[in-house]
Amino acid sequence: MLSKSHAKYIQSLHHKKFRDIENCFIAEGGKVILELLQSKKFTCTEILGTQEWLNSNEALIRKNFTGPLEVIQQHELEKIAALTTPNQVLAIFKKALSIPVAPEGKINLLLDNIQDPGNLGTIIRIADWFGINNIICSEHTVDIYNPKVVQSTMGSLGRVNMIYTELEQWIQQQRPIKLYAAALNGKNIKEVHLSEGLILIGNEGKGISENLLKLADEKITIQKLGDAESLNAAVATGIILSHIVM
Amino acid sequence: MLSKSHAKYIQSLHHKKFRDIENCFIAEGGKVILELLQSKKFTCTEILGTQEWLNSNEALIRKNFTGPLEVIQQHELEKIAALTTPNQVLAIFKKALSIPVAPEGKINLLLDNIQDPGNLGTIIRIADWFGINNIICSEHTVDIYNPKVVQSTMGSLGRVNMIYTELEQWIQQQRPIKLYAAALNGKNIKEVHLSEGLILIGNEGKGISENLLKLADEKITIQKLGDAESLNAAVATGIILSHIVM
Repeated sequence: MLSKSHAKYIQSLHHKKFRDIENCFIAEGGKVILELLQSKKFTCTEILGTQEWLNSNEALIRKNFTGPLEVIQQHELEKIAALTTPNQVLAIFKKALSIPVAPEGKINLLLDNIQDPGNLGTIIRIADWFGINNIICSEHTVDIYNPKVVQSTMGSLGRVNMIYTELEQWIQQQRPIKLYAAALNGKNIKEVHLSEGLILIGNEGKGISENLLKLADEKITIQKLGDAESLNAAVATGIILSHIVM
Repeated sequence: MLSKSHAKYIQSLHHKKFRDIENCFIAEGGKVILELLQSKKFTCTEILGTQEWLNSNEALIRKNFTGPLEVIQQHELEKIAALTTPNQVLAIFKKALSIPVAPEGKINLLLDNIQDPGNLGTIIRIADWFGINNIICSEHTVDIYNPKVVQSTMGSLGRVNMIYTELEQWIQQQRPIKLYAAALNGKNIKEVHLSEGLILIGNEGKGISENLLKLADEKITIQKLGDAESLNAAVATGIILSHIVM
Protein backbone atom coordinates (compact mmCIF):
# COMPACT_ATOMS: atom_id res chain seq x y z
CA MET A 1 0.00 0.00 0.00
CA LEU A 2 1.48 3.28 -1.19
CA SER A 3 1.30 6.19 1.28
CA LYS A 4 -0.09 9.50 0.06
CA SER A 5 3.12 11.32 0.81
CA HIS A 6 5.23 8.79 -1.08
CA ALA A 7 2.88 8.93 -4.07
CA LYS A 8 3.21 12.71 -4.00
CA TYR A 9 7.01 12.47 -3.87
CA ILE A 10 7.07 10.19 -6.94
CA GLN A 11 4.68 12.45 -8.83
CA SER A 12 6.95 15.40 -8.07
CA LEU A 13 9.69 13.60 -10.02
CA HIS A 14 7.64 14.04 -13.19
CA HIS A 15 8.96 17.61 -13.10
CA LYS A 16 12.51 18.71 -13.82
CA LYS A 17 12.53 21.17 -10.92
CA PHE A 18 12.00 18.39 -8.37
CA ARG A 19 14.27 15.93 -10.17
CA ASP A 20 17.01 18.55 -9.80
CA ILE A 21 16.26 19.13 -6.11
CA GLU A 22 16.05 15.42 -5.27
CA ASN A 23 18.81 14.37 -7.71
CA CYS A 24 16.58 11.44 -8.69
CA PHE A 25 14.46 10.33 -11.65
CA ILE A 26 11.89 7.66 -12.39
CA ALA A 27 11.92 4.92 -15.02
CA GLU A 28 8.82 3.01 -16.06
CA GLY A 29 8.40 -0.42 -17.61
CA GLY A 30 10.26 -3.66 -17.05
CA LYS A 31 12.53 -3.58 -20.06
CA VAL A 32 13.94 -0.12 -19.40
CA ILE A 33 14.33 -0.71 -15.65
CA LEU A 34 16.12 -4.03 -16.09
CA GLU A 35 18.50 -2.49 -18.65
CA LEU A 36 19.26 0.48 -16.37
CA LEU A 37 19.96 -1.87 -13.45
CA GLN A 38 22.24 -3.95 -15.62
CA SER A 39 24.18 -0.94 -16.88
CA LYS A 40 25.16 -0.11 -13.27
CA LYS A 41 25.38 3.55 -14.26
CA PHE A 42 22.57 4.69 -11.96
CA THR A 43 21.97 3.70 -8.35
CA CYS A 44 18.44 2.39 -7.93
CA THR A 45 16.82 3.28 -4.61
CA GLU A 46 13.44 1.60 -4.93
CA ILE A 47 11.34 -0.58 -7.24
CA LEU A 48 7.54 -0.55 -7.10
CA GLY A 49 5.78 -3.25 -9.08
CA THR A 50 2.70 -5.40 -9.26
CA GLN A 51 2.94 -8.72 -7.42
CA GLU A 52 2.79 -10.52 -10.74
CA TRP A 53 5.65 -8.57 -12.31
CA LEU A 54 7.87 -8.83 -9.24
CA ASN A 55 7.28 -12.57 -9.03
CA SER A 56 8.34 -13.12 -12.61
CA ASN A 57 11.35 -10.80 -12.47
CA GLU A 58 12.74 -11.03 -8.96
CA ALA A 59 15.65 -13.28 -9.90
CA LEU A 60 16.72 -10.92 -12.68
CA ILE A 61 16.37 -7.85 -10.47
CA ARG A 62 18.35 -9.38 -7.62
CA LYS A 63 21.41 -9.76 -9.83
CA ASN A 64 21.86 -5.99 -9.72
CA PHE A 65 19.70 -4.61 -6.90
CA THR A 66 19.52 -5.38 -3.20
CA GLY A 67 17.21 -2.54 -2.12
CA PRO A 68 13.49 -2.52 -1.40
CA LEU A 69 10.93 -4.14 -3.73
CA GLU A 70 7.47 -2.81 -3.01
CA VAL A 71 4.30 -4.50 -4.14
CA ILE A 72 1.69 -2.04 -5.33
CA GLN A 73 -1.64 -2.34 -7.07
CA GLN A 74 -2.08 -1.56 -10.76
CA HIS A 75 -4.38 1.40 -9.95
CA GLU A 76 -1.78 2.85 -7.55
CA LEU A 77 0.87 2.49 -10.23
CA GLU A 78 -1.26 4.37 -12.71
CA LYS A 79 -1.58 7.25 -10.26
CA ILE A 80 2.17 7.74 -9.92
CA ALA A 81 3.10 7.01 -13.55
CA ALA A 82 4.19 9.80 -15.90
CA LEU A 83 3.59 7.79 -19.08
CA THR A 84 0.11 7.22 -20.42
CA THR A 85 0.75 3.63 -21.49
CA PRO A 86 0.30 1.62 -18.30
CA ASN A 87 3.28 -0.36 -17.03
CA GLN A 88 3.58 -2.95 -14.29
CA VAL A 89 6.62 -1.44 -12.64
CA LEU A 90 8.25 1.88 -11.79
CA ALA A 91 11.68 2.49 -10.27
CA ILE A 92 13.49 5.42 -8.72
CA PHE A 93 17.13 6.00 -9.66
CA LYS A 94 19.74 8.52 -8.61
CA LYS A 95 21.08 10.66 -11.42
CA ALA A 96 24.63 9.94 -12.53
CA LEU A 97 27.45 12.42 -12.83
CA SER A 98 28.51 13.17 -16.40
CA ILE A 99 31.99 12.06 -17.36
CA PRO A 100 34.19 14.77 -18.94
CA VAL A 101 34.64 14.11 -22.65
CA ALA A 102 37.98 13.60 -24.39
CA PRO A 103 36.83 14.03 -27.98
CA GLU A 104 40.11 13.22 -29.73
CA GLY A 105 39.91 10.35 -32.19
CA LYS A 106 36.17 9.90 -31.77
CA ILE A 107 32.85 10.95 -33.20
CA ASN A 108 30.90 13.01 -30.67
CA LEU A 109 27.31 14.08 -31.13
CA LEU A 110 26.21 17.63 -30.24
CA LEU A 111 22.55 18.63 -29.85
CA ASP A 112 21.44 22.23 -30.08
CA ASN A 113 18.15 22.62 -28.28
CA ILE A 114 16.31 19.38 -29.14
CA GLN A 115 12.90 19.86 -27.51
CA ASP A 116 10.86 16.71 -28.06
CA PRO A 117 11.51 14.02 -25.40
CA GLY A 118 10.78 11.21 -27.86
CA ASN A 119 13.36 12.64 -30.26
CA LEU A 120 16.04 12.94 -27.57
CA GLY A 121 15.43 9.39 -26.36
CA THR A 122 15.54 8.04 -29.90
CA ILE A 123 18.78 9.93 -30.59
CA ILE A 124 20.40 8.41 -27.47
CA ARG A 125 19.38 4.97 -28.74
CA ILE A 126 20.85 5.75 -32.19
CA ALA A 127 24.14 6.91 -30.63
CA ASP A 128 24.27 3.67 -28.63
CA TRP A 129 23.66 1.63 -31.81
CA PHE A 130 26.53 3.30 -33.66
CA GLY A 131 28.94 3.12 -30.73
CA ILE A 132 28.98 6.85 -30.00
CA ASN A 133 29.74 7.24 -26.32
CA ASN A 134 29.13 10.94 -25.72
CA ILE A 135 26.30 13.36 -26.44
CA ILE A 136 26.90 17.00 -25.59
CA CYS A 137 23.67 18.98 -25.28
CA SER A 138 23.03 22.72 -25.20
CA GLU A 139 21.65 23.90 -21.89
CA HIS A 140 18.13 24.29 -23.28
CA THR A 141 17.89 20.77 -24.67
CA VAL A 142 15.07 18.78 -23.03
CA ASP A 143 16.10 17.03 -19.78
CA ILE A 144 17.43 13.48 -20.28
CA TYR A 145 15.66 12.46 -17.06
CA ASN A 146 12.24 13.44 -18.44
CA PRO A 147 10.21 10.19 -18.12
CA LYS A 148 9.45 10.11 -21.87
CA VAL A 149 13.15 10.45 -22.70
CA VAL A 150 14.03 7.65 -20.28
CA GLN A 151 11.33 5.48 -21.86
CA SER A 152 12.29 6.09 -25.47
CA THR A 153 16.01 5.41 -24.92
CA MET A 154 15.01 1.76 -24.33
CA GLY A 155 17.85 1.37 -21.85
CA SER A 156 20.56 3.12 -23.88
CA LEU A 157 20.63 5.90 -21.27
CA GLY A 158 22.75 3.55 -19.20
CA ARG A 159 25.42 3.33 -21.91
CA VAL A 160 25.73 6.85 -23.36
CA ASN A 161 27.43 9.65 -21.44
CA MET A 162 25.29 12.81 -21.52
CA ILE A 163 26.61 16.33 -20.89
CA TYR A 164 24.70 19.63 -20.70
CA THR A 165 26.84 22.69 -21.28
CA GLU A 166 27.17 26.04 -23.01
CA LEU A 167 27.87 24.66 -26.48
CA GLU A 168 29.63 27.62 -28.11
CA GLN A 169 32.33 27.74 -25.49
CA TRP A 170 32.61 23.94 -25.35
CA ILE A 171 33.16 23.69 -29.12
CA GLN A 172 35.88 26.34 -29.00
CA GLN A 173 37.64 24.51 -26.20
CA GLN A 174 37.90 21.39 -28.40
CA ARG A 175 39.76 23.09 -31.25
CA PRO A 176 41.34 21.98 -33.54
CA ILE A 177 38.76 19.17 -33.61
CA LYS A 178 36.39 19.91 -36.49
CA LEU A 179 32.74 20.83 -36.23
CA TYR A 180 30.30 19.41 -38.82
CA ALA A 181 26.88 21.05 -38.83
CA ALA A 182 23.78 19.31 -40.22
CA ALA A 183 22.26 22.01 -42.43
CA LEU A 184 20.89 22.72 -45.88
CA ASN A 185 23.19 23.20 -48.88
CA GLY A 186 26.19 21.48 -47.33
CA LYS A 187 28.37 18.61 -48.46
CA ASN A 188 26.41 15.44 -49.28
CA ILE A 189 26.80 13.13 -46.27
CA LYS A 190 27.42 10.15 -48.50
CA GLU A 191 30.82 11.71 -49.20
CA VAL A 192 31.61 12.28 -45.53
CA HIS A 193 33.41 9.49 -43.65
CA LEU A 194 35.05 10.43 -40.38
CA SER A 195 36.80 8.88 -37.44
CA GLU A 196 37.00 12.14 -35.49
CA GLY A 197 34.72 15.14 -35.31
CA LEU A 198 31.87 16.94 -33.61
CA ILE A 199 28.54 16.36 -35.35
CA LEU A 200 26.03 19.10 -34.57
CA ILE A 201 22.26 18.59 -34.93
CA GLY A 202 19.83 21.49 -34.55
CA ASN A 203 16.43 22.11 -33.05
CA GLU A 204 13.36 20.45 -34.62
CA GLY A 205 11.87 23.61 -36.06
CA LYS A 206 14.61 26.21 -36.05
CA GLY A 207 17.70 24.19 -36.92
CA ILE A 208 21.10 25.22 -35.56
CA SER A 209 21.54 28.55 -33.74
CA GLU A 210 23.32 31.24 -35.75
CA ASN A 211 26.22 31.54 -33.28
CA LEU A 212 26.96 27.80 -33.53
CA LEU A 213 26.50 27.55 -37.29
CA LYS A 214 29.20 30.21 -37.67
CA LEU A 215 31.67 27.90 -35.94
CA ALA A 216 31.14 25.00 -38.38
CA ASP A 217 34.13 23.84 -40.38
CA GLU A 218 31.81 22.08 -42.78
CA LYS A 219 28.05 21.95 -43.37
CA ILE A 220 26.73 18.46 -44.11
CA THR A 221 23.43 17.65 -45.80
CA ILE A 222 21.12 14.71 -46.44
CA GLN A 223 20.33 14.88 -50.13
CA LYS A 224 16.63 15.45 -50.84
CA LEU A 225 15.18 13.52 -53.78
CA GLY A 226 11.50 14.24 -53.18
CA ASP A 227 9.28 16.98 -51.80
CA ALA A 228 9.13 16.74 -47.98
CA GLU A 229 10.15 20.01 -46.39
CA SER A 230 12.28 18.40 -43.70
CA LEU A 231 13.08 15.19 -41.87
CA ASN A 232 12.38 14.40 -38.23
CA ALA A 233 15.45 15.36 -36.13
CA ALA A 234 16.04 11.83 -34.81
CA VAL A 235 15.70 10.29 -38.27
CA ALA A 236 18.15 12.86 -39.66
CA THR A 237 20.61 12.05 -36.87
CA GLY A 238 20.35 8.33 -37.65
CA ILE A 239 20.92 8.85 -41.37
CA ILE A 240 23.88 11.20 -40.83
CA LEU A 241 25.63 8.97 -38.31
CA SER A 242 25.10 5.88 -40.45
CA HIS A 243 26.92 7.49 -43.37
CA ILE A 244 29.69 8.98 -41.26
CA VAL A 245 30.62 5.99 -39.15
CA MET A 246 29.55 2.85 -41.04
CA MET B 1 -20.76 28.26 -32.17
CA LEU B 2 -20.33 24.54 -32.64
CA SER B 3 -23.50 22.44 -32.28
CA LYS B 4 -23.41 19.43 -29.97
CA SER B 5 -24.22 17.04 -32.77
CA HIS B 6 -21.49 18.40 -35.02
CA ALA B 7 -18.94 18.20 -32.18
CA LYS B 8 -19.98 14.60 -31.66
CA TYR B 9 -19.60 13.85 -35.37
CA ILE B 10 -16.06 15.25 -35.39
CA GLN B 11 -15.13 13.35 -32.25
CA SER B 12 -16.40 10.15 -33.88
CA LEU B 13 -13.72 10.65 -36.57
CA HIS B 14 -11.04 10.04 -33.92
CA HIS B 15 -11.94 6.38 -34.38
CA LYS B 16 -11.15 4.24 -37.42
CA LYS B 17 -14.59 2.61 -37.41
CA PHE B 18 -16.32 5.94 -37.99
CA ARG B 19 -13.67 7.23 -40.40
CA ASP B 20 -14.42 4.13 -42.50
CA ILE B 21 -18.18 4.65 -42.31
CA GLU B 22 -18.01 8.36 -43.11
CA ASN B 23 -15.07 8.04 -45.55
CA CYS B 24 -13.60 11.16 -43.89
CA PHE B 25 -10.74 12.09 -41.59
CA ILE B 26 -9.60 15.10 -39.60
CA ALA B 27 -6.35 17.05 -39.78
CA GLU B 28 -5.20 19.42 -37.05
CA GLY B 29 -2.83 22.37 -37.15
CA GLY B 30 -2.28 25.05 -39.76
CA LYS B 31 0.84 23.67 -41.40
CA VAL B 32 -0.58 20.21 -42.06
CA ILE B 33 -3.95 21.52 -43.25
CA LEU B 34 -2.41 24.05 -45.64
CA GLU B 35 -0.11 21.38 -47.11
CA LEU B 36 -3.00 18.93 -47.57
CA LEU B 37 -5.09 21.61 -49.29
CA GLN B 38 -2.18 22.47 -51.56
CA SER B 39 -1.56 18.82 -52.51
CA LYS B 40 -5.12 18.63 -53.91
CA LYS B 41 -5.13 14.92 -53.12
CA PHE B 42 -7.96 15.12 -50.58
CA THR B 43 -11.21 17.05 -50.87
CA CYS B 44 -11.67 19.31 -47.86
CA THR B 45 -15.27 19.67 -46.71
CA GLU B 46 -14.92 22.06 -43.80
CA ILE B 47 -12.37 24.13 -41.87
CA LEU B 48 -12.97 25.15 -38.25
CA GLY B 49 -10.54 27.68 -36.82
CA THR B 50 -10.16 30.48 -34.32
CA GLN B 51 -11.00 33.94 -35.63
CA GLU B 52 -7.36 34.91 -35.30
CA TRP B 53 -6.05 31.96 -37.32
CA LEU B 54 -8.64 32.31 -40.05
CA ASN B 55 -7.93 36.04 -40.37
CA SER B 56 -4.20 35.43 -40.86
CA ASN B 57 -4.61 32.51 -43.26
CA GLU B 58 -7.76 33.16 -45.28
CA ALA B 59 -5.90 34.29 -48.40
CA LEU B 60 -3.75 31.13 -48.40
CA ILE B 61 -6.72 28.86 -47.76
CA ARG B 62 -8.81 30.42 -50.50
CA LYS B 63 -6.24 29.45 -53.14
CA ASN B 64 -7.31 25.83 -52.72
CA PHE B 65 -10.62 25.76 -50.86
CA THR B 66 -13.97 27.39 -51.53
CA GLY B 67 -16.03 25.61 -48.87
CA PRO B 68 -17.18 26.74 -45.43
CA LEU B 69 -14.80 28.39 -42.93
CA GLU B 70 -16.25 28.23 -39.44
CA VAL B 71 -15.11 30.39 -36.58
CA ILE B 72 -14.94 28.50 -33.30
CA GLN B 73 -13.56 29.27 -29.87
CA GLN B 74 -10.31 27.79 -28.59
CA HIS B 75 -12.15 25.81 -25.88
CA GLU B 76 -14.53 24.33 -28.47
CA LEU B 77 -11.56 23.34 -30.61
CA GLU B 78 -9.94 21.57 -27.68
CA LYS B 79 -13.11 19.55 -27.18
CA ILE B 80 -13.12 18.16 -30.72
CA ALA B 81 -9.35 17.76 -31.12
CA ALA B 82 -7.73 14.33 -31.09
CA LEU B 83 -4.22 15.63 -30.42
CA THR B 84 -3.19 16.78 -26.97
CA THR B 85 -1.13 19.74 -28.21
CA PRO B 86 -3.70 22.46 -28.82
CA ASN B 87 -4.02 23.82 -32.34
CA GLN B 88 -5.91 26.79 -33.70
CA VAL B 89 -7.54 24.95 -36.58
CA LEU B 90 -9.05 21.60 -37.53
CA ALA B 91 -10.26 20.47 -40.95
CA ILE B 92 -12.31 17.59 -42.30
CA PHE B 93 -11.16 15.89 -45.48
CA LYS B 94 -12.53 13.07 -47.61
CA LYS B 95 -10.25 10.06 -47.88
CA ALA B 96 -8.59 9.54 -51.25
CA LEU B 97 -8.64 6.39 -53.35
CA SER B 98 -5.30 4.57 -53.52
CA ILE B 99 -3.68 4.46 -56.94
CA PRO B 100 -2.65 0.98 -58.14
CA VAL B 101 1.15 0.62 -58.03
CA ALA B 102 3.34 -0.20 -61.02
CA PRO B 103 6.53 -1.13 -59.17
CA GLU B 104 8.81 -1.62 -62.20
CA GLY B 105 11.89 0.56 -62.21
CA LYS B 106 11.18 2.05 -58.81
CA ILE B 107 11.87 1.63 -55.13
CA ASN B 108 8.66 0.81 -53.25
CA LEU B 109 8.39 0.66 -49.49
CA LEU B 110 6.46 -2.17 -47.79
CA LEU B 111 5.39 -2.05 -44.14
CA ASP B 112 4.51 -5.18 -42.21
CA ASN B 113 2.30 -4.24 -39.30
CA ILE B 114 3.78 -0.92 -38.11
CA GLN B 115 1.68 -0.08 -35.03
CA ASP B 116 2.82 3.28 -33.72
CA PRO B 117 1.06 6.23 -35.43
CA GLY B 118 4.10 8.49 -34.93
CA ASN B 119 6.31 5.92 -36.63
CA LEU B 120 3.97 5.55 -39.61
CA GLY B 121 3.68 9.31 -40.05
CA THR B 122 7.44 9.73 -39.83
CA ILE B 123 7.97 6.94 -42.38
CA ILE B 124 5.59 8.64 -44.84
CA ARG B 125 7.61 11.86 -44.42
CA ILE B 126 10.88 9.94 -45.02
CA ALA B 127 9.46 8.34 -48.19
CA ASP B 128 8.44 11.79 -49.42
CA TRP B 129 11.95 13.14 -48.72
CA PHE B 130 13.60 10.38 -50.75
CA GLY B 131 11.14 10.57 -53.63
CA ILE B 132 9.45 7.23 -52.94
CA ASN B 133 5.92 7.52 -54.27
CA ASN B 134 4.28 4.37 -52.93
CA ILE B 135 3.98 2.67 -49.54
CA ILE B 136 2.26 -0.70 -49.45
CA CYS B 137 1.05 -1.63 -45.95
CA SER B 138 -0.10 -4.93 -44.50
CA GLU B 139 -3.75 -4.90 -43.52
CA HIS B 140 -2.93 -4.64 -39.81
CA THR B 141 -0.68 -1.61 -40.13
CA VAL B 142 -2.06 1.37 -38.18
CA ASP B 143 -4.58 3.48 -40.16
CA ILE B 144 -2.98 6.34 -42.16
CA TYR B 145 -5.98 8.50 -41.28
CA ASN B 146 -5.34 8.19 -37.54
CA PRO B 147 -5.01 11.84 -36.37
CA LYS B 148 -1.50 11.26 -34.99
CA VAL B 149 -0.35 9.76 -38.30
CA VAL B 150 -1.82 12.69 -40.23
CA GLN B 151 -0.03 15.09 -37.85
CA SER B 152 3.36 13.44 -37.97
CA THR B 153 3.45 13.21 -41.79
CA MET B 154 3.75 17.04 -41.77
CA GLY B 155 1.81 17.21 -45.03
CA SER B 156 3.61 14.38 -46.85
CA LEU B 157 0.38 12.36 -46.76
CA GLY B 158 -0.74 14.47 -49.72
CA ARG B 159 2.24 13.34 -51.81
CA VAL B 160 2.73 9.63 -51.06
CA ASN B 161 0.33 6.99 -52.40
CA MET B 162 -0.69 4.59 -49.61
CA ILE B 163 -2.09 1.09 -50.18
CA TYR B 164 -3.37 -1.45 -47.63
CA THR B 165 -3.39 -5.00 -48.87
CA GLU B 166 -2.60 -8.62 -48.11
CA LEU B 167 1.18 -8.32 -48.46
CA GLU B 168 2.14 -11.95 -49.17
CA GLN B 169 -0.08 -12.17 -52.21
CA TRP B 170 0.84 -8.67 -53.36
CA ILE B 171 4.58 -9.43 -53.25
CA GLN B 172 4.08 -12.61 -55.28
CA GLN B 173 2.10 -10.70 -57.90
CA GLN B 174 5.08 -8.36 -58.46
CA ARG B 175 7.56 -11.13 -59.34
CA PRO B 176 10.25 -11.02 -60.68
CA ILE B 177 10.75 -7.71 -58.83
CA LYS B 178 13.03 -8.45 -55.87
CA LEU B 179 12.10 -8.27 -52.22
CA TYR B 180 14.67 -6.89 -49.74
CA ALA B 181 13.82 -7.51 -46.08
CA ALA B 182 15.26 -5.39 -43.25
CA ALA B 183 16.48 -8.01 -40.79
CA LEU B 184 19.43 -9.10 -38.68
CA ASN B 185 22.42 -10.84 -40.24
CA GLY B 186 21.76 -9.66 -43.77
CA LYS B 187 23.88 -7.84 -46.32
CA ASN B 188 25.27 -4.52 -45.02
CA ILE B 189 23.06 -1.78 -46.47
CA LYS B 190 26.06 0.34 -47.35
CA GLU B 191 26.71 -2.19 -50.10
CA VAL B 192 23.15 -2.11 -51.41
CA HIS B 193 22.31 0.47 -54.10
CA LEU B 194 19.13 -0.11 -56.05
CA SER B 195 16.95 1.56 -58.61
CA GLU B 196 14.22 -1.11 -58.42
CA GLY B 197 12.98 -3.26 -55.57
CA LEU B 198 10.52 -3.80 -52.76
CA ILE B 199 11.96 -2.76 -49.37
CA LEU B 200 10.18 -4.49 -46.50
CA ILE B 201 10.22 -3.08 -42.93
CA GLY B 202 8.79 -5.08 -40.02
CA ASN B 203 6.78 -4.39 -36.89
CA GLU B 204 8.39 -2.38 -34.05
CA GLY B 205 8.72 -5.28 -31.64
CA LYS B 206 8.34 -8.44 -33.68
CA GLY B 207 10.08 -7.58 -36.93
CA ILE B 208 8.90 -9.13 -40.20
CA SER B 209 6.33 -11.94 -40.19
CA GLU B 210 7.73 -15.40 -40.91
CA ASN B 211 5.65 -15.89 -44.08
CA LEU B 212 6.96 -12.65 -45.60
CA LEU B 213 10.58 -13.16 -44.53
CA LYS B 214 10.54 -16.45 -46.43
CA LEU B 215 9.81 -14.54 -49.64
CA ALA B 216 12.83 -12.24 -49.34
CA ASP B 217 15.43 -12.40 -52.12
CA GLU B 218 17.92 -10.69 -49.84
CA LYS B 219 18.07 -9.70 -46.18
CA ILE B 220 19.57 -6.26 -45.58
CA THR B 221 21.01 -4.99 -42.29
CA ILE B 222 22.14 -1.78 -40.63
CA GLN B 223 25.54 -2.57 -39.17
CA LYS B 224 25.63 -2.28 -35.38
CA LEU B 225 28.78 -0.76 -33.90
CA GLY B 226 27.58 -0.32 -30.31
CA ASP B 227 25.25 -1.95 -27.82
CA ALA B 228 21.65 -0.83 -28.43
CA GLU B 229 19.37 -3.79 -28.95
CA SER B 230 17.48 -2.25 -31.83
CA LEU B 231 16.69 0.97 -33.68
CA ASN B 232 13.34 2.71 -33.83
CA ALA B 233 11.42 1.48 -36.93
CA ALA B 234 11.17 4.92 -38.53
CA VAL B 235 14.87 5.65 -37.94
CA ALA B 236 15.80 2.29 -39.45
CA THR B 237 13.64 3.03 -42.50
CA GLY B 238 15.35 6.39 -42.97
CA ILE B 239 18.82 4.91 -42.71
CA ILE B 240 18.03 2.05 -45.10
CA LEU B 241 16.43 4.25 -47.74
CA SER B 242 19.25 6.79 -47.56
CA HIS B 243 21.82 4.12 -48.40
CA ILE B 244 19.72 2.48 -51.09
CA VAL B 245 18.60 5.51 -53.05
CA MET B 246 21.15 8.28 -52.40
